[in-house]
Amino acid sequence: MRVLGVDPGLTRCGVGVVEGVAGRPLTMLGVGVVRTPADADTGHRLVAVERGIEEWLDTHRPEVVAVERVFSQHNVRTVMGTAQASAVAMLCASRRGIPVVLHTPSEVKAAVTGSGRADKAQVGAMVTRLLRLDAPPKPADAADALALAICHIWRAPAQNRLQQAVAAHRAHHARAMKGRTA
Amino acid sequence: MRVLGVDPGLTRCGVGVVEGVAGRPLTMLGVGVVRTPADADTGHRLVAVERGIEEWLDTHRPEVVAVERVFSQHNVRTVMGTAQASAVAMLCASRRGIPVVLHTPSEVKAAVTGSGRADKAQVGAMVTRLLRLDAPPKPADAADALALAICHIWRAPAQNRLQQAVAAHRAHHARAMKGRTA
Repeated sequence: MRVLGVDPGLTRCGVGVVEGVAGRPLTMLGVGVVRTPADADTGHRLVAVERGIEEWLDTHRPEVVAVERVFSQHNVRTVMGTAQASAVAMLCASRRGIPVVLHTPSEVKAAVTGSGRADKAQVGAMVTRLLRLDAPPKPADAADALALAICHIWRAPAQNRLQQAVAAHRAHHARAMKGRTA
Repeated sequence: MRVLGVDPGLTRCGVGVVEGVAGRPLTMLGVGVVRTPADADTGHRLVAVERGIEEWLDTHRPEVVAVERVFSQHNVRTVMGTAQASAVAMLCASRRGIPVVLHTPSEVKAAVTGSGRADKAQVGAMVTRLLRLDAPPKPADAADALALAICHIWRAPAQNRLQQAVAAHRAHHARAMKGRTA
């Protein structure tokens, strides 16, 4: 499974591509940051984010895009830019028919460090270890994007099992209903 | 001046096109709502908003797009969808090189009713009167989009005068600097 993780932001939008399956060593295929100038107006910054995300999608052809879920109750000053950048990331993926999954920051931290309250340094250290890198990716947004992708790869089996269970339950229910009306 | 007003939202995104200049009767060229299904995932809803906005831009070729400025401190449950839809509207306009202007809800209310705290019914009534319509546009999102466009047309002369004054000041300053170094 190849996943593009996106840590959305207008000033720095972290992007990272990880390939692998749960339970096997993971491979980093790319990491970086899409930056937009703080003095440009929001519309042009969103166009720059779109262009950046499109390039990452073109280059790496991910099967899934994992985006950090934005909460409105967080830092009021930055939340708007984060929400806008995440909207562009979701739009770019959905336009291509690539599934978008959202993970909360604490889900991501818990997945890679074991604690939903881990700090940036801990997340960076675990990303470095799990992807067998020489040093933590900089800036933190880039490391967070990789952590999102790892989180998705590791959570996907559980999510798939859940979806399969729901599908099986529905099929069983449909058969039971059919038996009743026959 | 032809302005597309956008009252952003994921469930209902109000759109309205008004043509005119300050101090002259205004003309409504179109009004409507871009709707997206509440049960679709966010990415696909944003694709639908993008498609809708693109159609309005294609049909009406506005010179300016006026979007309601979203505040994060407002209704926490809906602010994310509003921020995301407004990001798509700004992206669509900026991609075409159409200037985007943001107006706050109270600026819009004050422009069309004289009071920044006017209610929806008052805004609808004034939009109906100013555009010489038979009845207030429904839903309120559509009326709000028209009010945004009207607000922009009426505020534009003041904004232009301000920009001209700044430009004149800069030109004067540049001449003075030149005189000093000559």
